[in-house]
Amino acid sequence: MAKPARHVFVCSQNRPAGHPRGSCGSKGCSEVVDEFMQQWMQRQCFAQVLVTTSSCIGPCSMGPNILVYPEGVLYSNVTKADVTEIFDEHLLGGNPVERLKAPADIW
Amino acid sequence: MAKPARHVFVCSQNRPAGHPRGSCGSKGCSEVVDEFMQQWMQRQCFAQVLVTTSSCIGPCSMGPNILVYPEGVLYSNVTKADVTEIFDEHLLGGNPVERLKAPADIW
Repeated sequence: MAKPARHVFVCSQNRPAGHPRGSCGSKGCSEVVDEFMQQWMQRQCFAQVLVTTSSCIGPCSMGPNILVYPEGVLYSNVTKADVTEIFDEHLLGGNPVERLKAPADIW
Repeated sequence: MAKPARHVFVCSQNRPAGHPRGSCGSKGCSEVVDEFMQQWMQRQCFAQVLVTTSSCIGPCSMGPNILVYPEGVLYSNVTKADVTEIFDEHLLGGNPVERLKAPADIW
C-alpha cells in the first residue's frame, strides 16, 4: 500500500447486546463495511484511496460512523446506500458530502 | 470524542500462522496496542489525541505499523519502548519521529 490521497476508516466495533454505549455493529455497520470493500475492489482505486476497518471512532449512538483523513471528516448514520456518493464525491472527487457530516458539536 | 489534533491508528491485524503476508499480530503488535492504550489513559490527553486500533494499514512485513493523521505519517517496526517518544514528540509535541518513519518507497 502506498500513501493514498484519502484514507477512510470504517468503524466495525461490536459490543454485547444491551451495552449502554451500543456500537456501530448493533447499528448495522457490517453491510456498510462490506459495501466499502466491494466498491473499493470494483473501482480498483488503490493508489488514491485506502479503506480500513477500525475500532470505535466516536459517537456510537449515531453509527455507523466513518472517518476520512487527511481532512478529518466524520460521517454518521451512514448506510449502504450512501457509499457510492462518498466514493464519487469525496474519496475520489475531493468534495465532502455535507449531508452526512456529523454535527459540529459532536466532531 | 471530539475532533482531536492527532489521531493514531494502531494496527491490530492478525492472520493465521504461516500466512504469506504475516501480520502486525505475528510481529507482536498486541503489546504496542496495550502500551498506547495505557499511556493514553495515564496521560488523559483525550482532547488532543485519539487512539484507535485498526485492521491492516500497510507493509505487514515491517509491522507493527502505526499511522498518524492528519499528517499521514506511517511508523513501522514500532516497539513498546517507542510509544513514549511517539506520544511526547509527535502526538503531543507535533514533531514526527524521523527514525521510526516507514521508508519513502513504502509510504
